[in-house]
Amino acid sequence: MSEKIGQLLQTTPEVINVGLDLFARAIREQGGSVQSVDWRPPMVEPAPQALPLFNDPRIAEANQEAVTRMMRAQPVVIGVARARDVIPGMTERTFLHAGPPIDWAHASGPLRGALIGAMLFEGFAETPEEAVRKLESGYVELSPNHEHDSVGPMAGVISPSMPVYIAVNAAGQNRAYTNFNEGIGKVMRMGAYAPEVIDRLRWISNVLAPLVGKALERSGGIDLRNIIAQALQMGDECHNRNKAATSLFYREIAPHLVECDAPASDIAAVLRFINANDHFFVNLAMVAAKVMADAAHGIAGSTVVTTLSRNGTEFGIRVSGLGNRWFTGPANVPRGLYFAGFGPDDANPDIGDSAITETAGFGGFALAGAPAIVQFIGGTPADAVRATLEMYEITVAEHEVFRIPALDFRGTPVGIDLRAVIRTGILPVIDTGIAHRQPGIGQVGAGIVRPPERCFVEAYRAFEREYLAERLAGTEPAGRSER
Amino acid sequence: MSEKIGQLLQTTPEVINVGLDLFARAIREQGGSVQSVDWRPPMVEPAPQALPLFNDPRIAEANQEAVTRMMRAQPVVIGVARARDVIPGMTERTFLHAGPPIDWAHASGPLRGALIGAMLFEGFAETPEEAVRKLESGYVELSPNHEHDSVGPMAGVISPSMPVYIAVNAAGQNRAYTNFNEGIGKVMRMGAYAPEVIDRLRWISNVLAPLVGKALERSGGIDLRNIIAQALQMGDECHNRNKAATSLFYREIAPHLVECDAPASDIAAVLRFINANDHFFVNLAMVAAKVMADAAHGIAGSTVVTTLSRNGTEFGIRVSGLGNRWFTGPANVPRGLYFAGFGPDDANPDIGDSAITETAGFGGFALAGAPAIVQFIGGTPADAVRATLEMYEITVAEHEVFRIPALDFRGTPVGIDLRAVIRTGILPVIDTGIAHRQPGIGQVGAGIVRPPERCFVEAYRAFEREYLAERLAGTEPAGRSER
Repeated sequence: MSEKIGQLLQTTPEVINVGLDLFARAIREQGGSVQSVDWRPPMVEPAPQALPLFNDPRIAEANQEAVTRMMRAQPVVIGVARARDVIPGMTERTFLHAGPPIDWAHASGPLRGALIGAMLFEGFAETPEEAVRKLESGYVELSPNHEHDSVGPMAGVISPSMPVYIAVNAAGQNRAYTNFNEGIGKVMRMGAYAPEVIDRLRWISNVLAPLVGKALERSGGIDLRNIIAQALQMGDECHNRNKAATSLFYREIAPHLVECDAPASDIAAVLRFINANDHFFVNLAMVAAKVMADAAHGIAGSTVVTTLSRNGTEFGIRVSGLGNRWFTGPANVPRGLYFAGFGPDDANPDIGDSAITETAGFGGFALAGAPAIVQFIGGTPADAVRATLEMYEITVAEHEVFRIPALDFRGTPVGIDLRAVIRTGILPVIDTGIAHRQPGIGQVGAGIVRPPERCFVEAYRAFEREYLAERLAGTEPAGRSER
Repeated sequence: MSEKIGQLLQTTPEVINVGLDLFARAIREQGGSVQSVDWRPPMVEPAPQALPLFNDPRIAEANQEAVTRMMRAQPVVIGVARARDVIPGMTERTFLHAGPPIDWAHASGPLRGALIGAMLFEGFAETPEEAVRKLESGYVELSPNHEHDSVGPMAGVISPSMPVYIAVNAAGQNRAYTNFNEGIGKVMRMGAYAPEVIDRLRWISNVLAPLVGKALERSGGIDLRNIIAQALQMGDECHNRNKAATSLFYREIAPHLVECDAPASDIAAVLRFINANDHFFVNLAMVAAKVMADAAHGIAGSTVVTTLSRNGTEFGIRVSGLGNRWFTGPANVPRGLYFAGFGPDDANPDIGDSAITETAGFGGFALAGAPAIVQFIGGTPADAVRATLEMYEITVAEHEVFRIPALDFRGTPVGIDLRAVIRTGILPVIDTGIAHRQPGIGQVGAGIVRPPERCFVEAYRAFEREYLAERLAGTEPAGRSER
């Protein structure tokens, strides 16, 4: 044994640990001293000949174009209609759902519960059992909201006769649709389908939605980006905290509701329903984000992520320059706080189109402006600030309109760059509701979740292939001197 | 010349500066190096035999009682009435005003303007000129709101037939009253009295106030402390920023308004008026604070400040254990941001009862929770945090109900201890509106102001006299072993 090795074995080891803390902990447990260095390998080893894509000015330009369209989209909610009358590609037998494509066999509990609820709501079945038999037999076609200009929170089920909001992009051509918020707890979007759930949906469909629709028409449209921008300065992040945004929307719509030709008792009931539900605005925040994200979609050569979405089984993303292809991976289970009587064992994996808010630069990306949310999702106000600061590492821009007072009015991080996610290993932070994993129960908590790496790895590989094949559609391969 | 003095004169001086930065600046300007130590002498040299009062457990106990009553008061607004019908000691010829007592001869421009407006509103005069003549001749008696269980923002004028809110302490016996908010700009409380100002007051009196009163009766009362507590977590400090609180009040009252037997056009007009005015809640924040502060008043031996108020000429304070005596000094001019076309030369000295919010532990004391307010009053979000942190130095407690998420849900500083102000030289921070110094113009900006030291010095001297004479009414002089 050499003298040096002898010395090494006689002294307490001093170690520098790079990356995973697992090793550091093992050494600490044995009494050693460890310096940890926060480093992670890139998620995927890029092909050497593809390395220029990480620094390609054409991609930077395409991304700038994408994020500019995203920030400058001006979503305005203009009215309400029956889903089948307005949503493109919707038939009498289409049920839309959150996340990437899925079939009944692979659907998780809350999505199954919501589909059962929609069968009962539509009158396609009299009992949950009949609904299940018909769903198993393909009685309705399942299709992702995102493929129909739509979004829905949690299970996100939109059935043909449900009322939907119509939002238009006042600065562009695109529109988007979403359903109405039912409140929290035992609600269809969380997988519940008891008679009270269906009755509430019927009341929304017959009383609330038509009145809100009339009031929206009278108003000439309500600017959702403006409400979100204000609410981000009032403690909301407009995904899981919508208390200010709900208030501001209510303030705008109430005078128009009062002037609708309807019984005062109905108007008062609609106002009380909204007032009792601080999450009422989340669907409007989502439809606004969908308008913004879609405005940024389809730009050749752009690596900006334009969809983050989950169906309760898989997480799926789409990328501006990669068309309508989904890149998926198994959905993670959120970590958070649970309602009384529930715990992590009850939690379904991540579900819902609501991560469109993070896609558009708010929600989890604006947590620094919403310190009070930690009472609902867990963690500390300092964690909330850290989450936003981290997201600047993987985004293209700071938002021109959405600003956070506590960060000296810095714009929120916006426009997730697929390349930055791959390079840094930092995954988008999403704050979200947690549904019970069994159908029929409902919401059990709220927390924080990240997408699986696989979505980004697969999307990166697809982009790399396009890049190496010089197929950045619409861009000129000429002049790429760096290759 | 000794060798040491010779060396001293040959080298650049290095100085430690204690206290006022004036000296330090002079040395820096001459190229010297200075270390500044933040220290100020106490405001007043206490009589040596009075020093035990700074550490007297009986005073600490009285202050704890005062601040506990202040925090646990539960102001609920229950209705609306004509001022003369409900405000104690009000006659057909009483005009109430903000701040300590004052007469017409000493009244500043905005108070004069508001008094002229009230003369026109009451029909006591046909023209401003006639109003001035009558005011000069003592046609009405002027009396401070605070001496009639009332408060009013800025000029704070309440005349006999004006409508006032009635707030009760659900956890005690006291009540308080305040007038209605007119919006910002050209409004009576800022000294304007043009026909449009009087017309707006008439509409408030004839349409808005009776409807809000009916709705409040239907509601069974609205809990103001609850609204303030929520709004402090939504970016308001509830003095100069009331956007969230106005929204929450609107949410509560709208359904009851809808159910009032009144034309839909009136109900819609009331909702639009509130929606157009993010300051609508400030009067309710003030009446809530008045209920809280009065609950803490009159506790023998307590040095807790229960009134901070200004009439535009003088700043006045009152102290829990010193009865209803005012301690006054000349009002300072706020520093802040001005509306387009106005500047510091237009500013009247500090005016209004609204510093009752700071007295009760919010307003300027909760600036850390309202970073977006700096767009209105100037400074940076970091200044806002510093202001709140500084106020912990002069207060008795951290509020049990009012909590600031960004400070890890720490309670706001509450219960200004006269002794702590004297000992530290730190004056309460107040954020406030700025009125034009001429009558007839209105609001010109908003900013930050501190009371003059003199109020606290005079109050301290009075307290010291009582203490040395062993006249802490109701306390036992026996057992004061430290004297």
